[in-house]
Amino acid sequence: MGLGAGRTGIGMGLRTWGPGPNWGWRGTQLGPTGLGVSRDRTGAGRAGLGCVAAEVRDCRFPRQRHRGRVPIPVPVPAPAALSRPAAAMLLLRAVAGRRLPPLMQLSRDCSRLAAGSAAPRGHRGAAPVLAALLGLGAVLAYGERRRRIAQAARATPAPQYPRYTRAEVAQHRTPSDRVWVTYGTEVFDVTDFVELHPGGPDKILLAAGGALEPFWALYAVHSQPHVLELLRDYKVGELSPEDTAPPAGDTKDPFSGDPPRHPALRVNSLKPFNAEPPPELLTQSFLTPNELFFTRNHLPVPAVEPGSYRLRVEGPGGRALSLSLAELRQRFPKHEVTATLQCAGNRRSEMSRVRPVKGLAWDIGAISTARWGGARLRDVLLAAGFGDETVGDGEWHVCFEGLDADASGTPYGASIPLKRAVSAEAEVLLAYEMNGQELPRDHGFPVRVLVPGVVGARSVKWLRSVVVSPSESPSHWQQNDYKGFCPSVDWDSVDFRSAPAIQELPVQSAITEPRPGAAVPAGELTVKGYAWSGGGREVVRVDVSLDGGRTWRVAELGPRPERGQGWAWALWELRAAVPAGARLDIVCKAVDSSYNVQPDTVAPIWNLRGVLSNAWHRVPVTVTR
Amino acid sequence: MGLGAGRTGIGMGLRTWGPGPNWGWRGTQLGPTGLGVSRDRTGAGRAGLGCVAAEVRDCRFPRQRHRGRVPIPVPVPAPAALSRPAAAMLLLRAVAGRRLPPLMQLSRDCSRLAAGSAAPRGHRGAAPVLAALLGLGAVLAYGERRRRIAQAARATPAPQYPRYTRAEVAQHRTPSDRVWVTYGTEVFDVTDFVELHPGGPDKILLAAGGALEPFWALYAVHSQPHVLELLRDYKVGELSPEDTAPPAGDTKDPFSGDPPRHPALRVNSLKPFNAEPPPELLTQSFLTPNELFFTRNHLPVPAVEPGSYRLRVEGPGGRALSLSLAELRQRFPKHEVTATLQCAGNRRSEMSRVRPVKGLAWDIGAISTARWGGARLRDVLLAAGFGDETVGDGEWHVCFEGLDADASGTPYGASIPLKRAVSAEAEVLLAYEMNGQELPRDHGFPVRVLVPGVVGARSVKWLRSVVVSPSESPSHWQQNDYKGFCPSVDWDSVDFRSAPAIQELPVQSAITEPRPGAAVPAGELTVKGYAWSGGGREVVRVDVSLDGGRTWRVAELGPRPERGQGWAWALWELRAAVPAGARLDIVCKAVDSSYNVQPDTVAPIWNLRGVLSNAWHRVPVTVTR
Repeated sequence: MGLGAGRTGIGMGLRTWGPGPNWGWRGTQLGPTGLGVSRDRTGAGRAGLGCVAAEVRDCRFPRQRHRGRVPIPVPVPAPAALSRPAAAMLLLRAVAGRRLPPLMQLSRDCSRLAAGSAAPRGHRGAAPVLAALLGLGAVLAYGERRRRIAQAARATPAPQYPRYTRAEVAQHRTPSDRVWVTYGTEVFDVTDFVELHPGGPDKILLAAGGALEPFWALYAVHSQPHVLELLRDYKVGELSPEDTAPPAGDTKDPFSGDPPRHPALRVNSLKPFNAEPPPELLTQSFLTPNELFFTRNHLPVPAVEPGSYRLRVEGPGGRALSLSLAELRQRFPKHEVTATLQCAGNRRSEMSRVRPVKGLAWDIGAISTARWGGARLRDVLLAAGFGDETVGDGEWHVCFEGLDADASGTPYGASIPLKRAVSAEAEVLLAYEMNGQELPRDHGFPVRVLVPGVVGARSVKWLRSVVVSPSESPSHWQQNDYKGFCPSVDWDSVDFRSAPAIQELPVQSAITEPRPGAAVPAGELTVKGYAWSGGGREVVRVDVSLDGGRTWRVAELGPRPERGQGWAWALWELRAAVPAGARLDIVCKAVDSSYNVQPDTVAPIWNLRGVLSNAWHRVPVTVTR
Repeated sequence: MGLGAGRTGIGMGLRTWGPGPNWGWRGTQLGPTGLGVSRDRTGAGRAGLGCVAAEVRDCRFPRQRHRGRVPIPVPVPAPAALSRPAAAMLLLRAVAGRRLPPLMQLSRDCSRLAAGSAAPRGHRGAAPVLAALLGLGAVLAYGERRRRIAQAARATPAPQYPRYTRAEVAQHRTPSDRVWVTYGTEVFDVTDFVELHPGGPDKILLAAGGALEPFWALYAVHSQPHVLELLRDYKVGELSPEDTAPPAGDTKDPFSGDPPRHPALRVNSLKPFNAEPPPELLTQSFLTPNELFFTRNHLPVPAVEPGSYRLRVEGPGGRALSLSLAELRQRFPKHEVTATLQCAGNRRSEMSRVRPVKGLAWDIGAISTARWGGARLRDVLLAAGFGDETVGDGEWHVCFEGLDADASGTPYGASIPLKRAVSAEAEVLLAYEMNGQELPRDHGFPVRVLVPGVVGARSVKWLRSVVVSPSESPSHWQQNDYKGFCPSVDWDSVDFRSAPAIQELPVQSAITEPRPGAAVPAGELTVKGYAWSGGGREVVRVDVSLDGGRTWRVAELGPRPERGQGWAWALWELRAAVPAGARLDIVCKAVDSSYNVQPDTVAPIWNLRGVLSNAWHRVPVTVTR
């Protein structure tokens, strides 16, 4: 499972990464002991090596728990000592590793390099090197692919195939007529594959008689080399030369303008882009690096020119405002909040194992934490004439729309209650900064909503409008998605009006280390994880069991920012002596400040959309002798 | 178990209840379709008959769930238009109803009367008429009784009956011992009527061994002439003359000044008095009648003379206030809140079954709901100079002390965060009214704190002081009680400083009908219960399982007051067809507006004080053939 996810991430790297005009990735350095963020403001031409960390936040667990302020960031020098051949050798060793997925093995090797080979299993200091190697891995992979293409060109000529027009292809739409599809200029008869299609025969038949590209763009699972290889086995022809230009619209991939991403992200869907950081990196630092922050896009990333950006604010009884980015920054005081965002679908993959659900198969990483900066939504609403008393009784709402839109022009949208929007304590932001940087494109550049304590879906990105309304957002994502139901409700019986739109999320926790199925050495085991709850309810305790929930110990909570309302997660760890040969069923459960707890099991909270998956997290491991 | 608890309640009743100089109880009329409250302000000498309903709240379950406003209480005129024969006929029809208890049948008949007989199952508008009829029934019963007494005086002398003491009557509490009850000075053996009781055998057994009057006063259906006639058929004796007055109090007992209580309450501790309503009565009405509201006293009930009562309000930087009851009522606007209070130990008895805990063995009834009226604490604090900005950063607190004190003079005390105390939305009250009446002595007369959404322990009764402070209350009950811990923490290892004082409570629900171990008839089973969550998080769904949690159905939520922040519980019910011979494991679990859920099992939330017991509630029953 972990390996599969890793493969997807690597597959991403193959397609997306490499030196070239569009390679705008900016290096990030990560480590188990802190967060190093480095920025190349030009955003081009840097190979991801030799980045300079600009900021480090120490989030190790002191033996003495303290709630003091997080240490002030300090500059870290570039790892100039790492030569390119040495890095290449590390990568090869990494791939040769047997028991661990390549990235984890790489991490261990890196750590030896950093800490000196005399330090067995030393982990500290590995991250900058790891980050550099991730960039290097992309370079090497890209080079390998080019070499193969060149080799193929030198090989014997391809066999001659008959030519077909698109009209002829279009006549093959059913198994009885044979099922033909095109990819590029090639024609394939996939009739015999229809029943074998992992996504189901019905899905593949949607493409029958036409081009695969638009469908593959929707389902990122196809963006893997072996899929194309598999397809080639079914080739039956070539498109006629006059017909090789795809029909209008096919080449216009709406996602072609999406930004480059960090190859460490585990991609659940490429178009739209949805990806999470690997668990091992998730709790390395209290603040998640922007490049690793989980990304949940519903639509293509809009390209916004900051100079011409306008935010519209309106509603009945107020005066409409139209704010430029500069006005938003200058007219309203900047307010900063450290807050965790979580997708409603985080840990959906555990729910899917009970019964299939609709939705992206998130592991435990659809949650991340950042320090956000921006204007208070309250201040902007007050400037537009909407105060606590400007609307009458009844629940009013503030509706947001993004600049991201589907083919019909319908934008992403969501809403929150007005009460929350105008509350000083709720600290809702129109954020333009994330961890001290301008918002990355994947996270809403230039302006997003940031609703602390509330499901990520309401923190609308690429914000274009804020509308005060007596009704919730009419958006699909407010009305007919992101709601929870009884396990007995299925797609035939569901009535979306019967459930409230998810706002605050329930208490949550998960184990990030060790990973399920791992073999851990006897001696002292360190279990790590995160815990969080919605609505500003701070996590007050995390219980960990090594025996499946029969006995429990109290985990140590890591330091958190001194002030704040519990918007941010708690990182925790537990050290325990584990005997050789033991089989551990590690479980965690958190308690929030309202003493809410997580449910024991998944099945009773199962719901058809696979949201709100917050049962005890279970990680079985074995202890080696 | 249920019966045993009932016995305790009845025992209480023997001491407290009966017509006499100390009988200060004031009549209340209740029904499954609403709550009619009537008060005789003199509080003495009335037999509990002839009350006129002053207020009705409709809380039936409509087929179409609606969230409309609960019908506004309106004064009901005497039903002059309704002729005596017509009313009598209605009452007869009521009793003739087969499948429904008489009161529900009566409700249907009333509603037909109100809506026109052409409207089948018409429910709207029934309540005022029902209330009128209940009053009328009482009047008729009273008249009928006077007539019979006069007749009896003219007739031949009554047969001589044997004399019994109350202690002798109290020995007859079960069908095997015969079921005896008293009414006035008469003794009845109603064993043969138990199974015929239209309200169910469980309800009549609540009065076994004691006086009927307090129960008949709760359920106005008994105020009908034929009921008394029917009872007379079961007469077996008279009370001994020396036993017709309740025993005198013990003057040395610090609890001797405690007020009389309703015999239906199930007493967990007599001194201090801690008692809960029986589950069957708990969900009969949305607002719990004051007499049935669970009582959690830590100390003797103080006797407060309202004329000399003073409330002191003080803190650093403010000006001390000393308010009389009249000033509290007159200087500050009266604010009303419908809110549920729950003891932290509700459902502790389930936790004790896992491992023993310290604390009162509450069943599921340490929770009740009332409409509270009083001054906003916010307004009083503002008058004393404490506003939102009067204290600096950091969390400040508002500490309360009660007039109840132990032998050393140490009063009960607790605190809440200042932020909550001064929040307009939090609606914290200094309450002097409960369900439209002045506070009963057991519930804090003349003034108590009422903190909606927060554990009952912070709603300090018999309030004597309010102190703004940088620290929480130093009281034992704030510092070393009412906190939750990991199941592994025992009395040797507990560090009370390591856990936060319970404020908001987690989501909760329980099944009130049927009772555990019950045998229910095959056919349609109705499962009833309550659900609530702390912090104003409204209950959005209740799932019910009949098979121990394998499959779930959505219960129907009863109507709730339109406005409000979810401070009050939701009553719910589920109707399901159950086959003869089945063994059901009925389970309920609630979901609140933050989509928090209850944990599956008790053991993982077990804690040494037995608080926060909110696992799924389980009720095993068998279905008779």
